Amino acid sequence: MVDSWVNSAERIGADLHLDLTGQGGRRAALIRVLREAVRDGRLAPGTRLPPYRSLAADLGVARNTVADAYAELVAEGWLTARQGSGTRVADRARPLRPAERVPRKSPARARGPRHDLRQGTPDASAFPRAAWSAAYRRALQAAPNEAFGPGDPAGRRELREALTEYLARARGVRTTPDRIVVCSGFAHAVRLLFGQGGPGGGVLRGPLAVEAYGLGFHRGLLAAAGVRTVPLPLDEHGASVAELGRERAVLLTPAHQFPTGGPLHPERRAAVIDWARARGTVVLEDDYDGEFRYDRKPVGALQGLDPERVIHIGSVSKSLSPALRLGWMVLPERYVEPVLAVKGEREAWASVPEQLALADFVVSGSYDRHVRRMRQHYRRRRDRLVAALAAHAPHIEATGVAAGLHAVLRLPPGTERSTVKAAAWQGVALDGLAAFRHPATDMPPADGLVVGYATPPEHAYTAALEALCGVLPPR
Amino acid sequence: MVDSWVNSAERIGADLHLDLTGQGGRRAALIRVLREAVRDGRLAPGTRLPPYRSLAADLGVARNTVADAYAELVAEGWLTARQGSGTRVADRARPLRPAERVPRKSPARARGPRHDLRQGTPDASAFPRAAWSAAYRRALQAAPNEAFGPGDPAGRRELREALTEYLARARGVRTTPDRIVVCSGFAHAVRLLFGQGGPGGGVLRGPLAVEAYGLGFHRGLLAAAGVRTVPLPLDEHGASVAELGRERAVLLTPAHQFPTGGPLHPERRAAVIDWARARGTVVLEDDYDGEFRYDRKPVGALQGLDPERVIHIGSVSKSLSPALRLGWMVLPERYVEPVLAVKGEREAWASVPEQLALADFVVSGSYDRHVRRMRQHYRRRRDRLVAALAAHAPHIEATGVAAGLHAVLRLPPGTERSTVKAAAWQGVALDGLAAFRHPATDMPPADGLVVGYATPPEHAYTAALEALCGVLPPR
Repeated sequence: MVDSWVNSAERIGADLHLDLTGQGGRRAALIRVLREAVRDGRLAPGTRLPPYRSLAADLGVARNTVADAYAELVAEGWLTARQGSGTRVADRARPLRPAERVPRKSPARARGPRHDLRQGTPDASAFPRAAWSAAYRRALQAAPNEAFGPGDPAGRRELREALTEYLARARGVRTTPDRIVVCSGFAHAVRLLFGQGGPGGGVLRGPLAVEAYGLGFHRGLLAAAGVRTVPLPLDEHGASVAELGRERAVLLTPAHQFPTGGPLHPERRAAVIDWARARGTVVLEDDYDGEFRYDRKPVGALQGLDPERVIHIGSVSKSLSPALRLGWMVLPERYVEPVLAVKGEREAWASVPEQLALADFVVSGSYDRHVRRMRQHYRRRRDRLVAALAAHAPHIEATGVAAGLHAVLRLPPGTERSTVKAAAWQGVALDGLAAFRHPATDMPPADGLVVGYATPPEHAYTAALEALCGVLPPR
Repeated sequence: MVDSWVNSAERIGADLHLDLTGQGGRRAALIRVLREAVRDGRLAPGTRLPPYRSLAADLGVARNTVADAYAELVAEGWLTARQGSGTRVADRARPLRPAERVPRKSPARARGPRHDLRQGTPDASAFPRAAWSAAYRRALQAAPNEAFGPGDPAGRRELREALTEYLARARGVRTTPDRIVVCSGFAHAVRLLFGQGGPGGGVLRGPLAVEAYGLGFHRGLLAAAGVRTVPLPLDEHGASVAELGRERAVLLTPAHQFPTGGPLHPERRAAVIDWARARGTVVLEDDYDGEFRYDRKPVGALQGLDPERVIHIGSVSKSLSPALRLGWMVLPERYVEPVLAVKGEREAWASVPEQLALADFVVSGSYDRHVRRMRQHYRRRRDRLVAALAAHAPHIEATGVAAGLHAVLRLPPGTERSTVKAAAWQGVALDGLAAFRHPATDMPPADGLVVGYATPPEHAYTAALEALCGVLPPR
């Protein structure tokens, strides 16, 4: 019996904070504080108490004192003891005072819409759990001890080397590991580049030219950092970079304009680099879904044209999962030290074990395999969307479908708002183009729906497409 | 042969960005771009090329075209082909242009001092790799699909529930999961609470009372957020909270004053809560090493005295590793929504898989086991430090040794600066008390060394102690 407690001491070894000061002997004090801890909910029902030996050692009391106290509380009904599972807090409603309950707005997407066709997230059910776990385990086994100390703010060397090779091969990015800074995603990159709006300022300053259609979330980040954004009109060749003037930098989505969907025309790619050279400034390239291209026309990173004039920003948020919070910036040489100075002396954001896991995932080929599988998966999704439209709404054109995880359905003028509203009524969540429009642009507005075809789980996709077709405006 | 390529297509599936536009046929174009990619370093030596079938499908060319191009480049020496390992880029020095190399300052601690006795990090060699990997794997297996979509900015429910139970049990914290917000560590918590110094402002405002000795890094964070800090003098009972006046909030380390080492006196604990109630404000409790207490005097969280008047901030940075970037805030009800509003609509920082892993680690008892083991480990370290001083420098008193991962060695007046300098000369990295002193305090300065005894690896600790004793001032 004593032996089994000793063993469970190693097995459970739970920590318990108890204050035995106060009146009476140690045994009485221990009974009192344990009873109080159960009564006020600090010890939740079902919680295993530490074995006698552990608690006795922690409190500096005799083992019998603990055993007596436990026995008393079992007798009183506060605790239960069962051979083999130790002493536990008895099951009773946890006496939480109502004042301590906080009614919370339900978190984003916790209770989602019936059909979720919002853009922006990959198919969460396709996360490669087994392969990623295996990479994580291998990375932890192989890591040197210093990996568990304070981290290099540039990110782990292993990851920056893997990204150097991968981005060169898959995206045409020209870099060295020393020019890569790991971050938590695009939003973090923007914060590092433009600062926090405080007196310290950032590495870059506004005004910043942006595409007339883009993520409102990004515009909000920039506004919070005190950066004024100037919209560039879009046409079928992408952003009208000829209209760039005296802005201090420009933010583009050259591979796949977000959300309208086309690549930036080669002449404009060259022109925007020329502008950055002439102005002595830089182009920010948001390469948010560069891996997912379905036609055979390669659209490499703009960064490859001039590594000294482009900041290339990517992440695993579309390719693997936004839950990982891993991204990267590929920087011109002159920005490396300033960005690291903003990031601080140690890595304060991106998990080091997951950086190492991503390095392993890339080097082992798992990342390529996953991207390839997802590309086929999303291409099939896109094809089904296009087929559904052809069958049920042939007058609605899907554009921007050669790449990415979303399409834009062009709508007859004046029908967007009512269509989005009708969709919401039918439990179909999606956004109209208006949601992405820069408030200051004077482009003529176009009506359209931005349909994310990656978000619904596989079993729900057919129904989502049917519901979508059901709310489209008639010819 | 064809079969083996087909298999390897699945196995390798590498992505390669190539642009076949330009003069000549597809075969010639493919040869040209592959050659260029190898020459300019985009394809690094040793890189496996995709199998014929994959690349042919990607580019929309015949499989033979790819096979011919590979054969040509093997003939030219750019590629090598070996049965079973596919086609690879030949080994030759990577032709990186010197202009693309960036000389970087070596990262923090990459080449550390001979003897590292700086405070602030746990023993990196003691990270529980196997147990943590197992928790990560279990967590990933058990996670619902939505865990891989956009995350709740409050943090995963699983983790907030585990922390609620753990913090109640081990630290006397009274909370519900709804009052916990997960973050990346103490610095992130400060940013969320005080904003970024921008026009939006934060949840709290300055001036903020702080202890006269503390981390300069924290003061810097607050200054960057535009928060003025007002130093509170320290004595043997901790911060002189009686001197609190019209500050808007106070930041304390009540369990173990950093760096001087004592707990806040019970009367002062009560007094600071009274002050916060009277002022209608809040106490920030930095519980940075609450788990590591070596005497039998429990020092619970201040938060337990009044959950509506204390923001309790903790992390795994001392208990597990700063590499994980996981921390938490336990908030009074009225601050929950404002902090979540600052954090944003989705989790942008803390890794969701690692949040789930930590929840598993806590619930399975692995966290308690690890903390218990580390407590014994650090207690032995502390005992060896105290014994070394008794043997070699009995005139030097070690204070603040009842808890934590560091001690303060009191020095004769006027000797601190020269001792720190002498230590640096001998390859012993540590800080004097002056490094932690608030610039605006009028406390009489005390001479002392802050010795982190957790940082050196086990095999180096004896030598570090010897080196330390060798630089202490004589009696």
